[in-house]
This record gives sequence, C-alpha cells and structure tokens, in this order.
Amino acid sequence: MNDNIKFSYPNSEKVYLKGTLYPDLKVAMRKVSLTPTIVVRNGKKEKTENAPVYIYDTSGPYSDKDVHIDLQRGLPRLRESWIRARNDAEQLPEVSSEYGRQKLADHSLDHLRFEHIALPYKAKKGHGVTQMYYAKKGIITPEMEYVAIRENMNCKELGIPTYITPEFVRQEIAAGRAIIPANINHPEEEPMIIGKNFLVKINTNIGNSAVDSNIEKEVEKAVWSCKWGGDTLMDLSTGDNIHETREWIIRNCPVPVGTVPIYQAMEKVHGRAEKLSWEVYRDTLIEQCEQGVDYFTIHCGIRLKNIPYAFKRLMGIVSRGGSIIAKWCEIHQKESFLYEHFDDICDILAQYDVAVSLGDGLRSGCIYDANDKAQFSELDTMGELVERAWKKNVQVIIEGPGHVPMQKIRENVERQTVKCHEAPFYTLGPLVTDIAPGYDHITSAIGAAQIGWYGTAMLCYVTPKEHLALPGKDDVRMGVVAYKIAAHAADIAKGHPGATVRDNVLSKARYEFRWKDQFNLSLDPERAFEYYKASNHVGDKFCTMCGPNFCAVRISQTLNQDDHCSIL
Amino acid sequence: MNDNIKFSYPNSEKVYLKGTLYPDLKVAMRKVSLTPTIVVRNGKKEKTENAPVYIYDTSGPYSDKDVHIDLQRGLPRLRESWIRARNDAEQLPEVSSEYGRQKLADHSLDHLRFEHIALPYKAKKGHGVTQMYYAKKGIITPEMEYVAIRENMNCKELGIPTYITPEFVRQEIAAGRAIIPANINHPEEEPMIIGKNFLVKINTNIGNSAVDSNIEKEVEKAVWSCKWGGDTLMDLSTGDNIHETREWIIRNCPVPVGTVPIYQAMEKVHGRAEKLSWEVYRDTLIEQCEQGVDYFTIHCGIRLKNIPYAFKRLMGIVSRGGSIIAKWCEIHQKESFLYEHFDDICDILAQYDVAVSLGDGLRSGCIYDANDKAQFSELDTMGELVERAWKKNVQVIIEGPGHVPMQKIRENVERQTVKCHEAPFYTLGPLVTDIAPGYDHITSAIGAAQIGWYGTAMLCYVTPKEHLALPGKDDVRMGVVAYKIAAHAADIAKGHPGATVRDNVLSKARYEFRWKDQFNLSLDPERAFEYYKASNHVGDKFCTMCGPNFCAVRISQTLNQDDHCSIL
Repeated sequence: MNDNIKFSYPNSEKVYLKGTLYPDLKVAMRKVSLTPTIVVRNGKKEKTENAPVYIYDTSGPYSDKDVHIDLQRGLPRLRESWIRARNDAEQLPEVSSEYGRQKLADHSLDHLRFEHIALPYKAKKGHGVTQMYYAKKGIITPEMEYVAIRENMNCKELGIPTYITPEFVRQEIAAGRAIIPANINHPEEEPMIIGKNFLVKINTNIGNSAVDSNIEKEVEKAVWSCKWGGDTLMDLSTGDNIHETREWIIRNCPVPVGTVPIYQAMEKVHGRAEKLSWEVYRDTLIEQCEQGVDYFTIHCGIRLKNIPYAFKRLMGIVSRGGSIIAKWCEIHQKESFLYEHFDDICDILAQYDVAVSLGDGLRSGCIYDANDKAQFSELDTMGELVERAWKKNVQVIIEGPGHVPMQKIRENVERQTVKCHEAPFYTLGPLVTDIAPGYDHITSAIGAAQIGWYGTAMLCYVTPKEHLALPGKDDVRMGVVAYKIAAHAADIAKGHPGATVRDNVLSKARYEFRWKDQFNLSLDPERAFEYYKASNHVGDKFCTMCGPNFCAVRISQTLNQDDHCSIL
Repeated sequence: MNDNIKFSYPNSEKVYLKGTLYPDLKVAMRKVSLTPTIVVRNGKKEKTENAPVYIYDTSGPYSDKDVHIDLQRGLPRLRESWIRARNDAEQLPEVSSEYGRQKLADHSLDHLRFEHIALPYKAKKGHGVTQMYYAKKGIITPEMEYVAIRENMNCKELGIPTYITPEFVRQEIAAGRAIIPANINHPEEEPMIIGKNFLVKINTNIGNSAVDSNIEKEVEKAVWSCKWGGDTLMDLSTGDNIHETREWIIRNCPVPVGTVPIYQAMEKVHGRAEKLSWEVYRDTLIEQCEQGVDYFTIHCGIRLKNIPYAFKRLMGIVSRGGSIIAKWCEIHQKESFLYEHFDDICDILAQYDVAVSLGDGLRSGCIYDANDKAQFSELDTMGELVERAWKKNVQVIIEGPGHVPMQKIRENVERQTVKCHEAPFYTLGPLVTDIAPGYDHITSAIGAAQIGWYGTAMLCYVTPKEHLALPGKDDVRMGVVAYKIAAHAADIAKGHPGATVRDNVLSKARYEFRWKDQFNLSLDPERAFEYYKASNHVGDKFCTMCGPNFCAVRISQTLNQDDHCSIL
C-alpha cells in the first residue's frame, strides 16, 4: 500500500469550524486564500484584500498536513466517541455473519487482509440507532450539526442568509426528505447530507471486475475520487476478494461508502442467479453492515408481473442487479426474496444505520426506453417500500435513470416526488443521447445538471469509459469534475445559499488577471494551470486565445477610468 | 500545404441524394452500413439485415474517395453554375476594396498567397441576390432544395413524416426565421440552414492570434472542424496575414465561413480603437465580401447610452468586438459608426448575400452579470436593426450569451424571440458556472443543450482551452463533439423528424454486441474504439466495466427466451 497518498490543494489550508450545540465538533473545510487586488492610481499603488473562500471539502484527512496517514491502520475514527456517547450500541464479541467468519479464518487471505479490523457495533436490543430514529425523537445529533455547518460554507463569513440550521436538518431527516448515510461501523466517515434542500451531491463508482483491477488500485481510486470532490463512493466490485477489498476501502474512506450486496451474493453462488436465496443474501447484508457500508443498493422494486414490460424494450434490462433479480424471478416464477423480505432487510439495516438505496433495476438503458411502463411500474413499487422502511426508521433514497431525452427528464422528478413521498432522488446521469460513447460524462452531465435543478439530491457520475471499459484514474477525475459542474450548476439554479460565492470570486480574479487565484478557486486547479502554462505567457495580462491587443478584459478595464488608473 | 488531408469514416460511404425541383442537385450524405443481426434458434442461424443509416455530413469532398483534393486550387465550385444560372450577378474585372488591391500588389506576400484567386461576383445593378430576396419573391433556389433534402436524413428511407419541404424552407427564409448563409463568392460551400425549425447547428471558432498559429495550421483546423461535424466556421484571426489566411480557409472550406471584420480593421489602424472609422471598416467589409465570407459578426447593437450599464458589472465587457466599439464610442462620445451606418452596411452585404450576425458586444462574461441591463438593452437595439436588415433582404441572426446560470437561460430565448421578431438565435454556450476553467466545453454544453431545446438555432462551441489559451487540434475535436452532443440532444427534445433514428439504431447495435456498428454510428468512432480496444476484450460479449458474469445485457438477453435461442 502506498502511504504517500496525501495531497494538498494550491494556496489552500485545511480548517475546522467549531460546533455550537457540540463545541467539540471539527467540521473540515478547505480555506482558499487569495491575493490582494492592486490598483495603481496616479502612480500610487492601492491594495485591497480579497476575503478567503471556504470550499466544501470531501478529501478528509488526506489533505490535512497535520494528520499522519497509515493505510494499514485506516483513518482516525472521528465519529466513534459520538456513537459511544449515545450508549445505544454495543461492540460485538465477533462478527455475526457466517461468511465474514469464514473469511477471517482463511489464512490464505492473510496477505490481502486489512490488519486492524475493529469489532463491529450493533444496536442494543430495543434501541434505535438511525439518524431518522433520532430525528423523529427530536434529537439533534453531532452528525446533524456537522452537516448544517458544512452546508453553510461562506454564508456566516459573508453574512449570507441561510435556512440551514441543525434543527432544519433534523426536520428534513425526520420527514424522510434527507438522509445522513452513517453506519455506526464507519466511524471514519465525515457526515454529509443528501436531500433536495441541501447541496446537490455526487456519487462515484469504483470497483474491480473479474477481468481487471486490484486492491491497491481500488483504494487509490477511492482516495482520488475524494480528492476531486466525490461526495459518496460506491464500491461495485464483482471480481475476486471483494470482501477484503471493501474492508480496505471503508477503513480508508472519509465519505460514505455504498455497495450492491447482490453482487457479492452472486459470487457466493458462483454466478448462477437461480441459486440465490434469502439466506445467502441475508448473511451478505450482515457481513457488509458490520464492515461499515453506509448504504446498500437493493433492487427490491422489481415485481414478477412487471418484468414482461421490459421485453418490449430496445435495450431490455441494463441494471446488473436488475437483470439478476429478473432472471431469478423468471426461473422461480415468484416474487423476489428482496421484495418478500423487505421488512426483514429493514430490521437488519436499522441495527447499524445503513441506508437503503432502492435500486432502479428497470431503468431505461437508451432514450427509446425512457419513461416506459417497466420503469414507472418499478417506481410505484418503490413508493410502497419507502413507507415500510420509514416505519422501521431506515433512511431511504430512490435510484433513477439512466438514459432520458431532455424533454422527458422533468416527469421523472415529478413522479418520483409524488410516488415516493419526497424521499431523496439519486439518478445516474441521465444521458440525454445514446450516440456519444467515449463522451458519456458529457451526455450525462447535461441531463444531470437539469435533473439536479429539478430536485434530484444526488447524481451518480458517469465516466468517459461508460459502455466501453472499466474507468482508470484519469477517467474518474474527468467523471468527478463533470459531475461537480452539473451539481454546482444545479445548486446555483436552485438558489442554494452561498452557491454563487465561488463563481463570483473566481470571476473577479479572472477580470483582474489574478491567474493563480482563478485557478486555485477552480474545480481542477492543476489542469487549468497546465493548459495556461503550456501557452508560455504566464503572468501576462492576456492569454494566447486573444493575444495582447485583442483582450476584451484589458480594453474593458480602460473604460470609464482616467488613464492614470489601472489594475496591476 | 498538406494535401494528404483527406479522411474516411469507418464503414461509411459518401452518397449523393438527388433533387426533385433541381434533378442535378447532389446532396452529400454519409451512409453508414451495418452488419446483420444473427440469432441462433434451435442451432440454426437466422440473419436479419439492418438498414443503413444516413448521417448529416459536414465534411465536404474531404471524405469523398473519388474527389481529388488540391489545397492550392481549393475545393470544387459546387454552387457556381447555380449562381451563374440566375443571371443576376456579374464577375468584376478586379477586386473592389483598396486594401484587397494593395495586398494583391504586395509581392513580399507572394509566398503566402493562395494562387488561384477567382475574380469576385457582385449583384448586377438593381438585382437582388440574397436567399431572402428570392424567398420573398416566391423563388425556391437550389440552395433551398439542397438544405431541405439534407435536413430530412433517414425520413424518406424509413417513412418518417416530415414537414421539411423546399417550400417550407422558402417560407422560413422569407419570414426571417431561418437563413442560408451563402455568399455568391463562396461557391465551394455546401448549403446549410440555420433556424429553429431545423436541426440545431454548431459553429466552431478557429484563427490565429498575434502570439500563435500559422496558415497551414489554420487550414488544417478548418478541415478538422468539418470532419468532426462543425456546421459553420468562424475565422477569428487577429495576428499577421489574416487576409491571406482567410483566402486559404474559404477556398478550402465546405461549410459557411464567418468573420468579425472589426478585427481586421483594428489591425489596419495598428490596434488603436480610436483610429477606427467608417471608411476603414467599409473597405474591410467589401474586401471580405469579395473573398467569400458568408456571415459577418457586427457589433452594431452597442449604443453610447447603454455602455455605462457595463461599468456596474463584475466582468465588464468580455466581447473583443464589443470592447473595441465601446472604447471608440467613449473616446469620441458618439454613436458607433457601425450603428450609424447600419443601412450602408446592409446595402453592401446585400450585393453578395453575406448574412449579418448581430454581435452581442455586451454579453455577460460571468454568471453574476447574466441577463442584466447592459445585455438586454443591446438586445432591444438588435430588434430594431433586424427589421432594417430585412427591409434590404439581408439575412440576419442574433448572437447571445455567454455565461448564464440555468434558471436564467429560458428568459434569454423568450426575450430574443419577441424583441428580434423570431430571427434565428446563435449563442455561445452559455456556460452555466464560472468555476471550471479547463472544462468549459462541459460547463457550456450543459447550457447549450438547454438553450438549443428552447429554440436557439445555432450553438457556438467552446473548447477546453476557453479562458486559458488558443485551442489546438484536440481541443477543437473535444469542443465539436461536446457541441454535437448538445445540438443532437436539443434536436431530440424538440422532436426534429428522424433525430432519434441514430440513437435507436446505435442502441440496438449495443444490445446485440455489434460493437463496430455501435462505434461507427457514434460521434467519434475513433475514440470509442480506442477506449474499447485498450481493454483487450475485443469481440467479447461484455466489456471490462462489468466483466462476463455481471453483464446485464447478456443476462437480459436470456430472459423470456427458450434456451436454444441467442443473439450471435
């Protein structure tokens, strides 16, 4: 494992904001310092300071110069004291899942295994441990205050009015309109919130497949995703040693980690969908709950009667989990064990505070199939399941498509809102056309920005390799940046408090030729600087696009000013 | 000059569709042949042919294996016989502009000069030669039938109903709702139409600046832009030898070429805006009209009284032409010569059928400045000028911003439609956030797709180098593909006849693992294949993203089928 994995952002400092209800809270933010504006007037320099900008920071301790990172030991356990203070969970003497115990006992895996596995926590009998449980009881947790502070970047400092208080967070979670995915077995995680009245979040997918990747590469990709701004991370591994890979990722991941447990269940039955059973699946759930997965994608919205709608499609079923469950239902000619055992599933998840992400197994895989009966029938089932989860205080989000042409995007959000009682929506893209393999981070960022604006709470990224191959590190970076753009554009359009601060401050820097400030405030300072630097005019008051004589900004600066005044 | 500039698209053939009104018309299209679908049923192969797909083709003769390209001589003069047959234009004995004559006489430029310059055409006294003139007279020109056939790709072949007839084209042009930019001195051009009831078009910008580039590179970039799908091309050169560079580009460009004549006028007055005059500008217009420029960006919407609105901005004036004109107005304290001489400008343009693109000199340069008084006051002036141009039968389009957050995009289109009497809208992006330098092809494709859907007729591309440096070839490719995505997404959303054919056929190929067909139908077959190939599983029925056991499409194919049936 490469311990040289730390990084820093240019001219940035890791700062920690304090809590009020919980004064010990240390909410991580990135503070970008700016250079002053210098105006020369009548030969004299006048200097005006530019206030620093606070940026929402998903990078965890990796960007804190004062934290020692040891991947073998995992990140500091930030939330453990909060969890213990609640006194409603107990540490188990051993892991509960049969498979987990087998894996631990298998010495042939010793060289792969994360060494310092802690014993898992679980709710004490008769106790609720989910954020929704606390919210409904009127309790504001440290997690809730943490996210409230995090969402208000720049507002307090700049006097921008905001509605986001710890109490508002609590109300949103109690109503099911937002979730804080925060397994009590993932104390390394910095809390974050997903809901339409908060910043739009982005999820990234990593994970090996049977034909590519290894543990070290996956941990590197996870940290890389956090560096560029991924808010949550799904480990979609399907190849060998996914139990071990997951442990390494979770222990070293500062953002919530999601999985699709059916993938591992499939590995256990050697890839034969018909051999899947509730027993195998249940053991997998417990195994992953105790490792610290924060949310599970579960394709329990597929009903036997609705599967035939997919036969009329151009692309059939394009969800991996969806196709597996449909196959199972067809072979056994009965409702899936996921649907039948949904209450049992919720009972398990509630003991660890794992959120459920209702998987859209029948999402559209091409624009021709968008908004069809297969897709919407599944959404109706999801609406029913949301209420069952909430009864058990399990936090829920709803997954959505996929491939949807622009004119059909809004209907997805409107239906989801009504049918699923405002549970947060979490969509993949959508891709607004099918004709651009190799550029699907762009086809989908177009749809993602729109669906985010309409109210989707989290956007699942798509990389340039979608449909073609497993993404590498640069693909992850491109996908994350494309989705940060989409999410930020949606935040602006929705009027999130403080969202435009970064744009405005960056534009001011651009106008004043404070190139470094401009880049330091951008989503990818390294790339912007690299492009600019290659043109060999660093420090000049123009770029090679227009050259010195045709720079509109230079000319614009001379308007309405006496000739003795200029920005230096 | 590199004559090895020809290229081909995979599994594609250049075909020419015939006209009905003009049977000699040869409308260039790209025909993509597909492999058959082979299903194995009970051990027997059943083969179903897949019909070829016709793709709108902007690549001109460069992709026709039967045409010999000689950059020294320029492309075949496709439209010359049409122009001559109308008998309303005459070939002049020499070029009319003083500057043009000076340049021709300057032997130090001989080594740079395009050798085979033809003498220019100009309207005979008392004759109209613009497409709008003909349209109002009820005449359907070959240009009109050409674009009607071009817009109907796949409709005739697949029996898709369409409203696009030559007569419809004529009506739209007569009403000013569409233009065919087609200077009688650019007979090499293949006609194309810009208007909201047609396919959304994209414009690309190339051109040297004082600090970079040369003629050969610019011609290469022009052809490159056409290869990837640029519908029109603006030559924004501002450095040395822009007269000579332009000649090379126009003679070798199969798509309409636009310029911003004020740039060259500025070179003539050695970069001093205050020295600009109507006389210098007028001579520049005539010079470029006679070279064959198809549309001019003219920043005549800036009124002296409106300039102070820009002083309240964060980014001031970011249009090069706009900043020059504002500077001139401020120094001279009077209305610009462009505004004052607008009727004279139209009189000149009408003699060659050069369209005017009313430049948005006061467009917003950051989201903070979007939709402000500076921007909208200019739009009001444009509305007045549109009617004056139409009186002289000059075709008009209107340029729009810029940087606009999503929630303010629609207002731009709605206002433009009303104020400018449905003249086609032509926007740069808009960029929906300012925080992603290095990725502004994406920030702007998000806005472009939306504004195209709302009715914008042409989208001006933005490359990843925007704000940073002059784009290179790969930047042009990235910018064009991002904008083809935006334009196509808008065509789908608007319900353009036949727009979804390519998506559906590509998706069918994807579902059936006909990889090559999938790539050949995509916007960038080379890149898609390159990504796919690098994963080393060419020909397999899965990609490395999911591996063989988790490919949803593979599993989906086995649903609802007896086990003896599979797609080969």
